[in-house]
Amino acid sequence: MSAPRAQVRRVPDRGRYEQDYVNAILDAGFVCHVGFVEGEQPFVIPTIYGRDGDRLFLHGSPGSRLLRVARSGAPLCLTVTHVDGLVLARSLFHHSMNYRSVVVFGRGAEVADPDERLHALRILSDQVCPGRWDDARGPNAAELKQTMVVAVTIEDASGKVRTGPPLDDEEDYGLPHWAGLLPLRLVAGVPVPDPRLPNRVEAPGYLNNLHP
Amino acid sequence: MSAPRAQVRRVPDRGRYEQDYVNAILDAGFVCHVGFVEGEQPFVIPTIYGRDGDRLFLHGSPGSRLLRVARSGAPLCLTVTHVDGLVLARSLFHHSMNYRSVVVFGRGAEVADPDERLHALRILSDQVCPGRWDDARGPNAAELKQTMVVAVTIEDASGKVRTGPPLDDEEDYGLPHWAGLLPLRLVAGVPVPDPRLPNRVEAPGYLNNLHP
Repeated sequence: MSAPRAQVRRVPDRGRYEQDYVNAILDAGFVCHVGFVEGEQPFVIPTIYGRDGDRLFLHGSPGSRLLRVARSGAPLCLTVTHVDGLVLARSLFHHSMNYRSVVVFGRGAEVADPDERLHALRILSDQVCPGRWDDARGPNAAELKQTMVVAVTIEDASGKVRTGPPLDDEEDYGLPHWAGLLPLRLVAGVPVPDPRLPNRVEAPGYLNNLHP
Repeated sequence: MSAPRAQVRRVPDRGRYEQDYVNAILDAGFVCHVGFVEGEQPFVIPTIYGRDGDRLFLHGSPGSRLLRVARSGAPLCLTVTHVDGLVLARSLFHHSMNYRSVVVFGRGAEVADPDERLHALRILSDQVCPGRWDDARGPNAAELKQTMVVAVTIEDASGKVRTGPPLDDEEDYGLPHWAGLLPLRLVAGVPVPDPRLPNRVEAPGYLNNLHP
C-alpha cells in the first residue's frame, strides 16, 4: 500500500507499510480524524470508523458536511493514532512519545444498497463494541433512511510507530535525572447504568473485554 | 472565536464557542491532528502541541513537511479529541459517544527568536508533562538549531461536546437491553525505568499526577 504521498519522511525507520501491520493498527482503534478540503481550507473532523478489508466505513446523518464531502469522491486523508506512552529522556531534546499511527489516503462513495448498508453498520458497531450488535434493537427502515454510510477505499496507507525506551546521547547517560517510559492507554471504567434502566438488568459481559 | 467555518453544523446544540471552554478542552490534551493541503490532497498528521494564550506551538525537525507547510502561513486545521466513553442505547440507532473535541483554524509562523523559541519549548513540555522541564537536561545550542518551532495563531475555534446517558426513543425504554455508559479515559501505567537507569533513581512524583 506504499506510495509517495504515504511515505513516512521524518524518522523513516519508524515507517511501516505491510498491510497486516497497518490493518492491526486500524483494528485497534475506532476513532479516526478525517481530513478534507473545501476551497483552500483543510478541515479535520473526528468520527468513528469500521474497517472491512480495504475499505473504511463512515456513517452519520445525511446532513453531515463530512459525509457529503466524503461521498463526493474528493480526496480524503483518514488518520488513526494510538498514544502508547511518554518517553522521558535525560535531555529534553530526546523526549519523545511512543505511539502507533496510520495515515490512509482514499476516496469515498456512498453505500446505497440496503443490505450493504446494514453490513457496514454492523462492521462499525463491531469496531466500537463487539457483541453489541446482537444485544440491542436493530435499525428500522426509518432509521436506516436517516443514516448515511460512506465507504472509503484505501488507496495508500502507511503506519508510523515508536516503541521502546528513550535514546539519550551517550554522554548524558551519567546524568542524575530519572529516565524511562510512562505507559498510557485508553482504559474503560465501570459501566454506568442509564438512570432509567430497571435494577435487574446487569451490564453485559462483552463490556469487560473492551479496553480492560 | 466563532465564525462560519468553525460553526458546529451537525447537532448544533453540542457546539461550544466560549473561549474558556474551548481552552479547557485544548489544555486537557497534548496530541492534535493537523490538517494541511498540498495540491488538492489533504494530509492529517498527529503531533504534540502546547497552548500559550491564543497560539498553539508545534515543534519538530526543520526537515518536517508538516512544519514547513505550517510555517508557510498556509491555512491549517488543528483538531483535538478526547474520547470520554461509549454511549450504549437500547436501539443501535441511538448509540453514540461521549467526547470533547475542538477544531481550530489558523495559520502558522516560525518562532525564530531564540528566547521565544525556548519559551515555546517549555510550553510544549509543560503541556505534555508538567514538572519535567526543570528535571531534565535543557536544550543546548546545537539542539535548539535542530528544533523548529511554529506558532499557529488561533483565528477561529469551536468545541463540540457530548455528555450524559443515552437518549432512546420513548417506546424503547421498556426493551430488555442493558443501556448506559462505558466511561473511557487515557490512563497512565506504572513508570518503566530505562534499562540503563541506575537502581537508586526513583521515578519523579510529578508522574503520579499525570493521567492518574
